[in-house]
Amino acid sequence: MSGLKIVVIGGGSSYTPELIDGFIRRAAELPVAEICLVDILAGQHKLDIVADLARRMLTRIGLDSKITTTMDRAAALQGADFVVTQFRVGGLAARARDERFPLQYGVLGQETTGPGGFAKALRTIPVILDICRDMTKICPEAWLINFTNPAGLITESVLTYTKVKCLGLCNVPIHMKMTIAKLLDAKANDVFIDFAGLNHLVWGRKVWHRGIDVTASVLEKMQDGAALTMKNIPDLKWDGDFLRSLGMVPCPYHRYYYMTDSILAEEQAAATTGGAGTRAEIVQAVEENLFKLYQTPELAEKPAELEKRGGAYYSDAAVSLISAIYNDKREIHTVNTVNQGAISGLPTNCVIETNCVISKNGARPLTVGTLPPEIAGLVQQVKAYEMLAVEAGVHGDSNKALQALANHPLIPSVRVAKQLLADLLSLNAAYLPQFKD
Amino acid sequence: MSGLKIVVIGGGSSYTPELIDGFIRRAAELPVAEICLVDILAGQHKLDIVADLARRMLTRIGLDSKITTTMDRAAALQGADFVVTQFRVGGLAARARDERFPLQYGVLGQETTGPGGFAKALRTIPVILDICRDMTKICPEAWLINFTNPAGLITESVLTYTKVKCLGLCNVPIHMKMTIAKLLDAKANDVFIDFAGLNHLVWGRKVWHRGIDVTASVLEKMQDGAALTMKNIPDLKWDGDFLRSLGMVPCPYHRYYYMTDSILAEEQAAATTGGAGTRAEIVQAVEENLFKLYQTPELAEKPAELEKRGGAYYSDAAVSLISAIYNDKREIHTVNTVNQGAISGLPTNCVIETNCVISKNGARPLTVGTLPPEIAGLVQQVKAYEMLAVEAGVHGDSNKALQALANHPLIPSVRVAKQLLADLLSLNAAYLPQFKD
Amino acid sequence: MSGLKIVVIGGGSSYTPELIDGFIRRAAELPVAEICLVDILAGQHKLDIVADLARRMLTRIGLDSKITTTMDRAAALQGADFVVTQFRVGGLAARARDERFPLQYGVLGQETTGPGGFAKALRTIPVILDICRDMTKICPEAWLINFTNPAGLITESVLTYTKVKCLGLCNVPIHMKMTIAKLLDAKANDVFIDFAGLNHLVWGRKVWHRGIDVTASVLEKMQDGAALTMKNIPDLKWDGDFLRSLGMVPCPYHRYYYMTDSILAEEQAAATTGGAGTRAEIVQAVEENLFKLYQTPELAEKPAELEKRGGAYYSDAAVSLISAIYNDKREIHTVNTVNQGAISGLPTNCVIETNCVISKNGARPLTVGTLPPEIAGLVQQVKAYEMLAVEAGVHGDSNKALQALANHPLIPSVRVAKQLLADLLSLNAAYLPQFKD
Amino acid sequence: MSGLKIVVIGGGSSYTPELIDGFIRRAAELPVAEICLVDILAGQHKLDIVADLARRMLTRIGLDSKITTTMDRAAALQGADFVVTQFRVGGLAARARDERFPLQYGVLGQETTGPGGFAKALRTIPVILDICRDMTKICPEAWLINFTNPAGLITESVLTYTKVKCLGLCNVPIHMKMTIAKLLDAKANDVFIDFAGLNHLVWGRKVWHRGIDVTASVLEKMQDGAALTMKNIPDLKWDGDFLRSLGMVPCPYHRYYYMTDSILAEEQAAATTGGAGTRAEIVQAVEENLFKLYQTPELAEKPAELEKRGGAYYSDAAVSLISAIYNDKREIHTVNTVNQGAISGLPTNCVIETNCVISKNGARPLTVGTLPPEIAGLVQQVKAYEMLAVEAGVHGDSNKALQALANHPLIPSVRVAKQLLADLLSLNAAYLPQFKD
Ligand SMILES: [Mn+2]
Ligand SMILES: [Mn+2]
Ligand SMILES: [Mn+2]
Ligand SMILES: [Mn+2]
Repeated sequence: MSGLKIVVIGGGSSYTPELIDGFIRRAAELPVAEICLVDILAGQHKLDIVADLARRMLTRIGLDSKITTTMDRAAALQGADFVVTQFRVGGLAARARDERFPLQYGVLGQETTGPGGFAKALRTIPVILDICRDMTKICPEAWLINFTNPAGLITESVLTYTKVKCLGLCNVPIHMKMTIAKLLDAKANDVFIDFAGLNHLVWGRKVWHRGIDVTASVLEKMQDGAALTMKNIPDLKWDGDFLRSLGMVPCPYHRYYYMTDSILAEEQAAATTGGAGTRAEIVQAVEENLFKLYQTPELAEKPAELEKRGGAYYSDAAVSLISAIYNDKREIHTVNTVNQGAISGLPTNCVIETNCVISKNGARPLTVGTLPPEIAGLVQQVKAYEMLAVEAGVHGDSNKALQALANHPLIPSVRVAKQLLADLLSLNAAYLPQFKD
Repeated sequence: MSGLKIVVIGGGSSYTPELIDGFIRRAAELPVAEICLVDILAGQHKLDIVADLARRMLTRIGLDSKITTTMDRAAALQGADFVVTQFRVGGLAARARDERFPLQYGVLGQETTGPGGFAKALRTIPVILDICRDMTKICPEAWLINFTNPAGLITESVLTYTKVKCLGLCNVPIHMKMTIAKLLDAKANDVFIDFAGLNHLVWGRKVWHRGIDVTASVLEKMQDGAALTMKNIPDLKWDGDFLRSLGMVPCPYHRYYYMTDSILAEEQAAATTGGAGTRAEIVQAVEENLFKLYQTPELAEKPAELEKRGGAYYSDAAVSLISAIYNDKREIHTVNTVNQGAISGLPTNCVIETNCVISKNGARPLTVGTLPPEIAGLVQQVKAYEMLAVEAGVHGDSNKALQALANHPLIPSVRVAKQLLADLLSLNAAYLPQFKD
Repeated sequence: MSGLKIVVIGGGSSYTPELIDGFIRRAAELPVAEICLVDILAGQHKLDIVADLARRMLTRIGLDSKITTTMDRAAALQGADFVVTQFRVGGLAARARDERFPLQYGVLGQETTGPGGFAKALRTIPVILDICRDMTKICPEAWLINFTNPAGLITESVLTYTKVKCLGLCNVPIHMKMTIAKLLDAKANDVFIDFAGLNHLVWGRKVWHRGIDVTASVLEKMQDGAALTMKNIPDLKWDGDFLRSLGMVPCPYHRYYYMTDSILAEEQAAATTGGAGTRAEIVQAVEENLFKLYQTPELAEKPAELEKRGGAYYSDAAVSLISAIYNDKREIHTVNTVNQGAISGLPTNCVIETNCVISKNGARPLTVGTLPPEIAGLVQQVKAYEMLAVEAGVHGDSNKALQALANHPLIPSVRVAKQLLADLLSLNAAYLPQFKD
Repeated sequence: MSGLKIVVIGGGSSYTPELIDGFIRRAAELPVAEICLVDILAGQHKLDIVADLARRMLTRIGLDSKITTTMDRAAALQGADFVVTQFRVGGLAARARDERFPLQYGVLGQETTGPGGFAKALRTIPVILDICRDMTKICPEAWLINFTNPAGLITESVLTYTKVKCLGLCNVPIHMKMTIAKLLDAKANDVFIDFAGLNHLVWGRKVWHRGIDVTASVLEKMQDGAALTMKNIPDLKWDGDFLRSLGMVPCPYHRYYYMTDSILAEEQAAATTGGAGTRAEIVQAVEENLFKLYQTPELAEKPAELEKRGGAYYSDAAVSLISAIYNDKREIHTVNTVNQGAISGLPTNCVIETNCVISKNGARPLTVGTLPPEIAGLVQQVKAYEMLAVEAGVHGDSNKALQALANHPLIPSVRVAKQLLADLLSLNAAYLPQFKD
């Protein structure tokens, strides 16, 4: 076959048209022969809807890449060049539980951060390791582009426990870049950000516009109403004194750490009867509408409504990364990869999110050096949590699980950590084979 | 003069008889010519009481070491061999404020940990640096044994910003050793603990009894009622599952991190009208009684009542350390000193609390290596706070001060950090010359 | 002035037409208003010759960049954007001495490596620090592109002891790339080499052709007659077994370490009466001819004969680097810059030669990680020598000087190191103000 | 059995009476029930002689420890508490070859350093790993005290490739301490040396006498005729300027690195017909006489003649180390153990020789920190050689073997390294099963 085979696991996701749109926009540099959408039986209906829309999109533009669908993952992986994972174990229902169960203990409920993210990690690790076992056998040379959350922690599981070539990807860095470019009224390509940290805990240590350091100016603009957030994160204003004293640009997710009390209050209000519901619950409605829309036979483009779903620039990040690998571009992308000493003070083998030069051989991080104490401690504390979470998730080790939660900065005591752990193990029992003996 | 000159800054403290008792018990190995008690004018009355008691103690035992008192620190430092700092800037009144002001924000009030400890650090740093300037001029070869809290952070200020030879000392490690020996029904000398961490954040990574690893057994006994605490820390029970999953012995102060919610509840109850009052308020009463007792002309020993004050084994720790230096003993003591790479993942130049070989040339830490993630993150996060606090305290930098508080694991949000900072700068204005421009 | 001012210190060098040629070829992307050639009084004649040729070159191509000359360095630095240093303290005569004096002790004589390079470093350090003092006052925002050898060590002196923005540059990496591209019959742009090490001690850890690892194939071709050397290094054949066991591409200068005995024999033969003379002596003749040629009024291009001089691709490396900075290109160049943790096992603050992303803000090294023992030890040993040499050169410290030589892997004993040191201090006394008390 | 079982592998060595003497002198603190001397069939005659002498020594002093002998190593290891390895694969004949074969290439021939030591390592590694396999099965709790050379490298093989509890021991540090005490006319117990480095490459970074830094004075005395060497190392004088510039005390073996040319000349002279012969050849004669002497029925003490053999203080080092372990003494001994970060700039997992606190649980190194460049480079280069040598020796990997030799600072070129490798593989073929396919 001349041309690439892209396998999308979780292909029935409402995000897929976004991804297809990305491949369309980069068709000139990325010769895609086949995009194989894989999902599980329960998702077949959505998968068919999405596949049909994808085909209409390609037809409209005159591309002859083939869209295929299957529930047979092993078959899909035959001949794969890139495997994109965007699946969600337990679906939005599980996410909704993740968002609700911590609230009763006065702890944030969030998809990727805190106990919710921890539950998601435990559900996801067995599945991603299983995918990797298949890839090792069937397509050992293929690249895994992991978008499944919590992306840093899942990527660390893959890179620690398998031989699969994997990059972890998140749209937060590109989202920050685009938003900051807007703040600066600048072209995105003229803005460069020195990102470093962990997934959903990444700072822009410096922002340059055409090589001029504009960090201070960005920080001023960020507090002047422009809040630089994302669809799925409450749009709370940043404190000007704090930003100035920090001297670096926090990512939208940092609100969970820096504004814990305010966000918790918002979440609790939303979660009460009569409230707006949690983010997952809102998204469920958005999704339903999206899938209705996707079935419109006339629709042959990514619909504008998709933007409400979140995940902006996801396809840009993913497809441009795939192109940088395929075309050996040696461009700088912000991805999750092994530290290797790039950030001093973090273990050499852990996964970080940072600027990397991307080539056919993957990612090589730019050297970051020592993080200043303003951010070093939080990064190290969250990485300790992540390392414990990976051990807990891979080995089904409840001691590590308790330590993971007790080490999470958003969990106020061991007592609460124990309760959260008991709850999440019970709520997710169906998805946690590793914790059955 | 043949014999050592010991200078005690904060000599009017109620602890001083404890210290004198220590010198008496080690008189055979430590030839002390003079113990010079230094205090400030406001403390002169207490100083005289304590000095008289000290003289009676020495007379009773037949030692001819001289007890002198002065309010002229520079004069005191002339010819000093060891300088012991146990002063408290602002006295118990300031400590009582430290313990109360965070409570309204739902944050712990504690003498050395959290915003209270931060306020104490800001008050203490200008004074300790001033003492060090004097020492550099007057007695550059003398050793500074710093007992003033927060001891780790104050020692880091001294070792970063002065050339003074300094060891930071705390009675927590020796207290843990004695308590664990009791738990094990063993002789203290047969117990050895592999301590590592920071001041008031130190773990016993392993406990050996005559070389046999008894850590698991100690952890079991710790939850069985024996709570291993200290006079000034609420005696909350440890959770057995947690201790087992940790596999290391936390120090009594870890309760503030691991049982934050329960301790906060206790503190809030004590601080309400009709409650027992904060620890400082209780101590104030204890102190008054102690000083009455000290004036009893018949009293020529350390009174049993002193134990209620806390600080058990303080003199043992301090005097045995001084003797190990003086006699070039190469014994292992647990002190605060520069990391130098002993703990990987912490800055080379920061101060840690760990087992060290003590000689006439000070402390050389035993190599610890990489801390496991169960404790690494918390140590790193608190060290980041401490480094920021040192910068804030030395330079009067309110940006660093805000970042210090925002990085403290016990402070739930930037919003609260800002309020705490405003309050503490205002409450302590009289003691913070570095924050006046 | 619209357009850049480039100051070339050592502007009267025979290399300058090469550099001018580089600016001509990149005129479209680099708007140069003035190239100011600076030299010392003794070099005025050559300076004028070179400047005239440079002007003819620019005129021929129709560029209106101005060529100016001066012996007043401070005046030259006014308004400078880039300062290129290619001076040689003591000229070729000093180099000839460097190449000869070690031979009698059975030690290699080489311009940049071993005792010859050490002598050159001692002569150069006072001058470069003087230049940097001027730059700090006169053009603190200008970039110093240091080509003066030993480039790594000189760059380390600048970056350790001054605030000047400096990158150290050598044509070895680009030379290796071009030669390897030829070996592979490939386009240079399709070849990428993972360089890491020190100046004149850099390895290509991997060679990729369009992203495919071709290292093994390059190593095979290197022994098959194609010796991958440079003009100034004897063209000795590489041993196939050795290259295979190394698995990395050594640089031409590695011959001095890996083939010490053979090169010494060649050098000793060349240095005897009737021999070809040392490299400097040969170059002296080449230079004389070059300068005759440069005076030909019809000559308005870089003459082909310049290639014999060595320094191939020098202008390419230098001008493309300047352009990458000026245009904020974020391209990868191989330069000498501060380690910052890029190579584990070397001091954080030392200077290494490695692949860096170049922007308006200088160089950020790609993370290298831990070097394998096949090369780590040699790199660390030579870096120890360099650090000692910097201390010796900056402070005129003869203890450090003796230790530097005793630590150099090419010097067989302390006895010889002492003799070499005595000789070189005496031979270079006129250029070593720092060693006079 | 009440009392310890000590197994001595290579028990027929002429050193054994020294070891027995050590156990006798520490009988009060070390209750030895049995000393089991193990050797190979070819050594049975010597073994019997030594065992008889050992029995007479114990009888004379009235100790009832049992001396047993066997050629069945597995049987010997049953119930072992400590296993001391002092065997020599290939005997003195192999050592004599090690000392001679490099000389023709102008390279030092030495038992433990350079190509001779490398050959010895290759012969020894398969045997020690075999012993360790037995120990793991038969006496997994026993301690291996490895005295077999090259002790650092062999200990690294054991600690990298087996689970055996092992300390590597050498008499160089204790020898330096005793000699320096003599130089200072001081009691040995009053002298403390801050040792750090690798086996046979260890420096005394500071010497203290009763806590006073006397390093400079020791260095002065060392050049004043007192040469501080050992029986097996030529007694060449140290250069005063060099010692002063170094500021640290080199070990006797450093002569091979710092005085390479002079030692080589001595060795070559000794090795020519009519010369004194190599050290092994001299030792062979000493040994013959010793064994004659050992057979004297009246002899019931360690004979004075044993001192000529070298190995002074060996028994002191070994038996006091065993006692420190057995009695959980927490004394400081200088041993070979895993770095763990004690010396920055060396791999965490490599073996170093340094001051350690010794307890029932083995050795914990005192933190050394960063080595100064005066010694860092040599340590790192030799460690790189050692790591390659371990790989070569364990896996029979001739690529690693060539790289090991090419990286050794005493081998002047790859050409010579190849010749040395060919020679040593051929000369030692009978002892290198790992290099047969
Ligand atoms: Mn994300
Ligand atoms: Mn304390
Ligand atoms: Mn060069
Ligand atoms: Mn030895």
